[in-house]
Amino acid sequence: MRSDFLEQIATLDVVCLAGGVGGAKLAEGLAQVVPPERLTVIVNTGDDFQHLGLTVCPDLDTVLYTLGGVANPETGWGRVGESWKTIKETDRLGGAAWFKLGDLDLATHLVRSQLLAEGQTLTAVTRHLCIHFDIQVQLLPMSDQPAPTMIASEEELLPFQIWFVRERWQPAVREVCLPQDVRATPQVMHALEYADIVVLAPSNPFVSIDPILHAYPIREMIMDLPRAVVAVSPIIGGKAVKGPAAKMMAELGMSASSKSVARYYGELIDGFIYDQQDAGQCDNLACSTLISDTLMVDAKSRVRLATELLQFALSIAE
Amino acid sequence: MRSDFLEQIATLDVVCLAGGVGGAKLAEGLAQVVPPERLTVIVNTGDDFQHLGLTVCPDLDTVLYTLGGVANPETGWGRVGESWKTIKETDRLGGAAWFKLGDLDLATHLVRSQLLAEGQTLTAVTRHLCIHFDIQVQLLPMSDQPAPTMIASEEELLPFQIWFVRERWQPAVREVCLPQDVRATPQVMHALEYADIVVLAPSNPFVSIDPILHAYPIREMIMDLPRAVVAVSPIIGGKAVKGPAAKMMAELGMSASSKSVARYYGELIDGFIYDQQDAGQCDNLACSTLISDTLMVDAKSRVRLATELLQFALSIAE
Repeated sequence: MRSDFLEQIATLDVVCLAGGVGGAKLAEGLAQVVPPERLTVIVNTGDDFQHLGLTVCPDLDTVLYTLGGVANPETGWGRVGESWKTIKETDRLGGAAWFKLGDLDLATHLVRSQLLAEGQTLTAVTRHLCIHFDIQVQLLPMSDQPAPTMIASEEELLPFQIWFVRERWQPAVREVCLPQDVRATPQVMHALEYADIVVLAPSNPFVSIDPILHAYPIREMIMDLPRAVVAVSPIIGGKAVKGPAAKMMAELGMSASSKSVARYYGELIDGFIYDQQDAGQCDNLACSTLISDTLMVDAKSRVRLATELLQFALSIAE
Repeated sequence: MRSDFLEQIATLDVVCLAGGVGGAKLAEGLAQVVPPERLTVIVNTGDDFQHLGLTVCPDLDTVLYTLGGVANPETGWGRVGESWKTIKETDRLGGAAWFKLGDLDLATHLVRSQLLAEGQTLTAVTRHLCIHFDIQVQLLPMSDQPAPTMIASEEELLPFQIWFVRERWQPAVREVCLPQDVRATPQVMHALEYADIVVLAPSNPFVSIDPILHAYPIREMIMDLPRAVVAVSPIIGGKAVKGPAAKMMAELGMSASSKSVARYYGELIDGFIYDQQDAGQCDNLACSTLISDTLMVDAKSRVRLATELLQFALSIAE
């Protein structure tokens, strides 16, 4: 890495909008390049839910565990070195066991639920957890209000996690329903106000990035930003790296492609990064494009993609 | 055991009022002698509390685990074969870890909290748990309403579990404060209506038995019962077998003795069983007395005390 690049990056404030796995990986890559006090990760809370009496925030936890170095690299969710004693007994006692809460993971939900019950905001609770996971980057929930995403299938309206985990995202999606009147936190607005670069992580555009943009006034603030907004495509070769993004695109009447993602973001973005497998697919877009290796298979590739992304963003901003 | 005694017992409905450890042991003894469809255990819920987002019912769980054969015989609370992975991590993450929730025990609280959140009553939830712990005896919370016991110490008013567990019952008790307007459940009232024998288990009179009696109209129904009400003293040789009963008696201005317990129950009881160590102490009481070995050290001694108690109750009722 050129030292003048690092010097330049050190003067810029970077905000990354993230869902679960893909967002967490890119956020971790960015955290290796951007000084922690300059990096804010705003996470989707539309998939949060009340479960077994607890407040569970799957996307926040995936980013938390990834940045804290305790994520399970094999599953993409939960903690490494996990065990399942409590959830097995919960199952035996006739409780809901379709959402796999590990014994270590449970501690996060217990502490969060305790602090929320004491009247703390989700933002304050997340800061508390970051301190205990030794995370210096600013990790923010998009909102302190509940903002449950609902999935309208052909037959019924399903709470997000029921559709996503219990039904393994199999019911075809007719519409993603986001709640009205969700507001971003003051901390999120402050971060966006000072952001030089905004990154839309390679997360699901409909159920990870859209809920964040939908929290007022995040979309409006990003539209008005003077500098670079860069998205990374979650689609490679017509498929999602993980999860239902490609399947949803087909169900929502788009082709499952990076080009569709770029068009979906439209005027919101100034730059778009997509995978070399799809090289040429986005040649005619209105925004700048960068073709790269977007599959983040290890720590090294996360840092490489983050670095390329920041250089690309700087080139656009200049 | 004489078969005519067992035949006689099989025609009677027995209700046992119980707190935690002592109540659970006697309830288990009774369950070995009384046919399950004839035995109801009404448990104190005054020590229930919201903790780490969950609804925890310590007395109900002690009776549940004891009757279910999964209680930890060494601690007197919690489950046998327990592990502590989640609570250790909860502690590391800055959560409240002063109340030791084991990994197996946690499953009970998760299932209970889930079912309560779905709108079930605590009575229905307890029935659900009894089915899964293969318990045939009818186990009933005294009330489906929250009924939090508070402890007024010299300096402050403490929620029960804060005083009992976190402060290890050290702050001197000036008064036990029971909430107004707590009502017994229909199931509790039905059981009492048909009860031939009511047993006050050797639990703490002030924080285990009183909260049950305080749930309207339990005390009134027991006062009006035509047949035998028998209490077992929780005090042996001036000391409580476990817990703060003796210490509280001194702080509340009574002598720490079985005699004080009998006097405290007063006209409510028809019979009083106390330990052979204190033989003679209760000679001048208005009610019938039985001197026995009341320390239930093993399964055999629980059954023996339960049998003696029932025979004593029958002799009073005749």
